[in-house]
Amino acid sequence: MDSHFSKLERCDGMFKRILIANRGEIAVRIIRACMEMGIETVAVYSEADRESMHVYMADKAICIGPYQSTKSYLNIPSVITAAKITECDAVHPGFGFLSENSKFAALCEMAGLNFIGPSPGAISLMGDKAAARETMKKAGVPIVPGSEGKIYSSEEGKKIALQIGYPVMIKASSGGGGRGMRIVKSEEEFEELFNLCQNEARSAFNDEALYVEKYIENPRHIEFQILGDKYGNIIHLGERDCTLQRRNQKVLEEAPSIILDDELRRRMGEEAVKAARACNYYNAGTVEFLLDKNKNFYFMEMNTRVQVEHPVTEMVTGIDIIKEQIRIAAGEKLNITQEEVKISGHAIECRINAENPSCNFRPSPGKVTTFHTPGGFGVRVDSSIYQGYTITPFYDSMIAKLIVHGKDRKEALMKMRRALSEFAVEGVDVNIDFLIGLLREKDIEDNNYDTSYIERWLRKQGE
Amino acid sequence: MDSHFSKLERCDGMFKRILIANRGEIAVRIIRACMEMGIETVAVYSEADRESMHVYMADKAICIGPYQSTKSYLNIPSVITAAKITECDAVHPGFGFLSENSKFAALCEMAGLNFIGPSPGAISLMGDKAAARETMKKAGVPIVPGSEGKIYSSEEGKKIALQIGYPVMIKASSGGGGRGMRIVKSEEEFEELFNLCQNEARSAFNDEALYVEKYIENPRHIEFQILGDKYGNIIHLGERDCTLQRRNQKVLEEAPSIILDDELRRRMGEEAVKAARACNYYNAGTVEFLLDKNKNFYFMEMNTRVQVEHPVTEMVTGIDIIKEQIRIAAGEKLNITQEEVKISGHAIECRINAENPSCNFRPSPGKVTTFHTPGGFGVRVDSSIYQGYTITPFYDSMIAKLIVHGKDRKEALMKMRRALSEFAVEGVDVNIDFLIGLLREKDIEDNNYDTSYIERWLRKQGE
Repeated sequence: MDSHFSKLERCDGMFKRILIANRGEIAVRIIRACMEMGIETVAVYSEADRESMHVYMADKAICIGPYQSTKSYLNIPSVITAAKITECDAVHPGFGFLSENSKFAALCEMAGLNFIGPSPGAISLMGDKAAARETMKKAGVPIVPGSEGKIYSSEEGKKIALQIGYPVMIKASSGGGGRGMRIVKSEEEFEELFNLCQNEARSAFNDEALYVEKYIENPRHIEFQILGDKYGNIIHLGERDCTLQRRNQKVLEEAPSIILDDELRRRMGEEAVKAARACNYYNAGTVEFLLDKNKNFYFMEMNTRVQVEHPVTEMVTGIDIIKEQIRIAAGEKLNITQEEVKISGHAIECRINAENPSCNFRPSPGKVTTFHTPGGFGVRVDSSIYQGYTITPFYDSMIAKLIVHGKDRKEALMKMRRALSEFAVEGVDVNIDFLIGLLREKDIEDNNYDTSYIERWLRKQGE
Repeated sequence: MDSHFSKLERCDGMFKRILIANRGEIAVRIIRACMEMGIETVAVYSEADRESMHVYMADKAICIGPYQSTKSYLNIPSVITAAKITECDAVHPGFGFLSENSKFAALCEMAGLNFIGPSPGAISLMGDKAAARETMKKAGVPIVPGSEGKIYSSEEGKKIALQIGYPVMIKASSGGGGRGMRIVKSEEEFEELFNLCQNEARSAFNDEALYVEKYIENPRHIEFQILGDKYGNIIHLGERDCTLQRRNQKVLEEAPSIILDDELRRRMGEEAVKAARACNYYNAGTVEFLLDKNKNFYFMEMNTRVQVEHPVTEMVTGIDIIKEQIRIAAGEKLNITQEEVKISGHAIECRINAENPSCNFRPSPGKVTTFHTPGGFGVRVDSSIYQGYTITPFYDSMIAKLIVHGKDRKEALMKMRRALSEFAVEGVDVNIDFLIGLLREKDIEDNNYDTSYIERWLRKQGE
């Protein structure tokens, strides 16, 4: 790949070379930002990813181990060594893998590599869900009523559940991504589900600490994009509505949320900035809230990294979040104030996965024989695959993000339907028809759904 | 192709079904706009275009003749018949082909088909370059000094050349697209070049009328996008700088032009609106100006259709020009005022052609074995081809338009370089490396070029 222009245009004090400690679409996304900033890139890859696009696109690529993530993308010594021998001055962790590993962030800094993310302290504080709750409570950010600290016995948990009233949610303190969670509807089932959670938490996160909180029924998932520099300036870039989920995995994300009015947006945004300030946050991060039917909102968690769905915020604000991450890490001050952030139009993202919705969304690895992406005004495709590429079974099944931007939600929905209908993938199963079917529903247009909508809808389809 | 949503969301009074009297990228562009507006589409195609994307994307497709344009895309009875038998209520002509044929526009209206464009009168007035000059002069729009009416003899032309001073330009009155034009540097060569032009004009346009005007040396090509409704409201959407040309064919277009300051932009915009008003213009159109070294500007011509380069204006204004064309044709009032038009960031378009720059840009038809388009934030691809498609030798060689949008010109240039480096086409020759080479030149970054820059640059390369 020609990188003739990598040498041009780089700003003074900016990184010379960044190692991207990730793969797939987000690795490509970061390389693109670097290319546009005149920064050289080093890709790392597992033996299974030799033919991956991020390998071709980076200025340099280093194999760091076999297909198993633990031996490659999660292998801290390999990643840091790759960065050092290629003389990188910074590491971008992307999302997933090592992105929320505070030890990795600390080791990068110790090795003289600028970690493009928040401080190790902020990562570990927000990664510990019970400690995060505690911090938010102290800062005055509204949290879901629940246990004050970590809970290790079902007796203790039952007491709290009685206080806050059923239904309640049991969650692993170190959990994330929907794992180690159970809804408990009544006292009778508490003990059994508590034990189940504890076992899951122990095996998945090596930490059996749980916490119990009020279960918010039929909520909307609203999250705020945060940007903070290293000088204490923190702003938010508005919200994303990620209510459409399947098994706690986001399916469709949009910005802005049409369920918020300006006043609620202002209040939630202020609380999001307060949450970030409470852990001395810098770089990009996301504060997730649950919004109940009565428009009460509660802090859920803070993700201390860039999100999969960051493009919808980019489309409505015009701000390149990856470039901002890099600038902040390089020590630049935020060059935009809260008042200057303007939301324009409406953006929607759909995640295109290689999976078979008819077989319970089973991943569908294999060779992609056709890959034709949609185009035109207001259509953005962030992908890492190409016609002829073989999708391996080793990593997650997302192969592309399709993002559209229209002057309002109605136009964005029409554009998404149009773009999905143009998207042609052959050789593997994909969820495009599932998404087209979902977007046919009038409920989506009418904004009449909550976080369990897709699961109810799928059950109805199956009947 | 699924068109489940064509039935939804259509506005009252809006067209039900539009015939697209074109092919290639612009046909796809128009179909996309219709899909997003809930309007059904009918494609027409020549026998050579059976496998074309516009045929697959439209709700219905009708073969209107053999590969020769005169027997298919330029065949007025076939096109109108196709629209009538499919019960279309409107026809979009795109650009090229019948788009500036006033007879076709008039016949559409007579057949009860709404022609999506200006009135036949405006088309024929602006299509006659001498009459257009005359009209502009009367309206007070600055024109290049030159002959008052049509000229048929070299004696007559020579007299005018002496008055305005050499160098002068001889142009065919019915000309366009750079044909039937000659620069004359001194009186000695006048007669020979005049006769040459006259012969060309006779054979190409069946009209030997010429006109003579002052030749503007080293000009910039600046054009203003016009939108006007059927109620006399006319606005402009700012300018495009299309100075980078090869043989009068645009190569790279951008918006805004960084050579204009706000005051000059305001003045030129006002003259552009005045020019449109002078021919009672409605629908989308473009007023082209030459801007000389001293920032004097002169009306060149008005294109009475959408332009190839319309996307750069869409990217910086957020306004979908094709949708506006359709709304205006359906009788809607402009829903935006001049004051509300805001230019945001900077957009650049490159035309991707199947041609071989090393062999004098010879067209390169053939089967496209790889077609991988760039993606990411601020990257738009408008194309009509796909991997496996065979480009025929019968039509123009443009296979895609690559458009980028950045917060400023510098970012847009970096993004264009990045996107071009990702664009992979195999099986046919393309001009991507030529464009990458051109964008490496510091002159482009420094905005140091005129309409002959590329030709000088190519000569230098050849040395």
